[in-house]
Amino acid sequence: MKILVSNDDGIGSQGIYELVQELKKIGDVTVVAPLTEQSAVGHAITMKSPLRVTKYFVNNELFGYAVDGTPADCIKMGVRNILKDIPDIVVSGINHGSNAATAIIYSGTVSAAREAAIMDIPAIAVSVTSYNASHFNYPAKVAAHFCKLVKEKGLRKGSLLNINVPDIPEADIRGIVLTKQGHAKWDETYVCRQDPYGKDYYWLKGEMVVLDTEPDIDQVAVMNNYASVSPIHFDLTDYDLFKDLVSWQFESIKI
Amino acid sequence: MKILVSNDDGIGSQGIYELVQELKKIGDVTVVAPLTEQSAVGHAITMKSPLRVTKYFVNNELFGYAVDGTPADCIKMGVRNILKDIPDIVVSGINHGSNAATAIIYSGTVSAAREAAIMDIPAIAVSVTSYNASHFNYPAKVAAHFCKLVKEKGLRKGSLLNINVPDIPEADIRGIVLTKQGHAKWDETYVCRQDPYGKDYYWLKGEMVVLDTEPDIDQVAVMNNYASVSPIHFDLTDYDLFKDLVSWQFESIKI
Repeated sequence: MKILVSNDDGIGSQGIYELVQELKKIGDVTVVAPLTEQSAVGHAITMKSPLRVTKYFVNNELFGYAVDGTPADCIKMGVRNILKDIPDIVVSGINHGSNAATAIIYSGTVSAAREAAIMDIPAIAVSVTSYNASHFNYPAKVAAHFCKLVKEKGLRKGSLLNINVPDIPEADIRGIVLTKQGHAKWDETYVCRQDPYGKDYYWLKGEMVVLDTEPDIDQVAVMNNYASVSPIHFDLTDYDLFKDLVSWQFESIKI
Repeated sequence: MKILVSNDDGIGSQGIYELVQELKKIGDVTVVAPLTEQSAVGHAITMKSPLRVTKYFVNNELFGYAVDGTPADCIKMGVRNILKDIPDIVVSGINHGSNAATAIIYSGTVSAAREAAIMDIPAIAVSVTSYNASHFNYPAKVAAHFCKLVKEKGLRKGSLLNINVPDIPEADIRGIVLTKQGHAKWDETYVCRQDPYGKDYYWLKGEMVVLDTEPDIDQVAVMNNYASVSPIHFDLTDYDLFKDLVSWQFESIKI
């Protein structure tokens, strides 16, 4: 199995290293990941400036290719320019921090997997739900297991699996549950400070407020100590609203 | 009507200026837009560094507030810190270039509107379908008209309207059509060049390949000289795939 791996925490992060060690047991792994941390860059891509690609070595062995761009750039670069071929699957992670509920929208890790989905390549995003994560082995094994499952059963084109695993010892994980994206909100403010010259600057500070309670919602599943697996796609059409809007009779509007 | 306006081309661009002139006829407009161009930044937000806010003047009058961040940052900053109140509607644009089909995923303009939708604020993104756009007046009038319609009829929470208008004279526009996001692909490569020191750098070059033919697809509508209006939301769950995945029996998986 030919596996392309990326992330948003950067090629030197612990999460991607532990993921790669596990995935090497089941396939031929190529790592193309951001040179620097790219958390919360969403689905940004680099068009107005060029990209550089650098070989990245760990213990004097080639670990992968570092790109001075975004996670989505890494998938484009990996497929179009490094592999020059379509991998069997793309795996993005292991992200340090949850990518559940509305955090998915901002996530570079999920966007790397979504970039693969746009290219019709099956993809998995995997995150461990703490910024100071210390339990990577179980999430890595879950990712490898789902790679095998996806290979065996196939995945609808244009979709990906978004996996979130609680940052707890493997023995405390209660199982794996199929979930949907939650509808959490952000309680956020800008902290205002003054620089040494007396000028204001603003720093975003926010906390997710979980509004869901159903066990098959991603955020709820991880709070209940389950590994959460959500099917995600990139068709943003709101089909319910589409039906409602028919009554607005756009065809008769005169501007 | 209290209207918050942003874009991704930057506060100094022609599109936002022409939009604001039209929206001032129907409401109280506050502009909070990126200081510099932020095309293709997707739904990136700035968390790891602080933001600055600068008053931006046009003809010695306050035009709005420039933020040295992304379009999504501007909506957060506008609502949380500048208005300190919830506007009736957010309008993002007028984008110089199409934001239809898979371009939506990469669009900063659409992401600004989506950030509003996440906050339960009704939102409209509006684009004119050429990077060298010259016809802004009609799209501005369409945006204003839909602001009034949204105020009158309401919009489902968490959704926005994504409007694309062909860059042609108003007389040649054939009408307005309700559409869905298209499934176009990107035919893309990295152009490799050498810098003056002999090192390679790579520049993304891509063209959208339109695969859809139905008249109610965004990209097709604009190709047919219609203004396209698509309902968009941020629930990325693939509900069809969710049903398929039930048969994978996640609860019985042992890692």
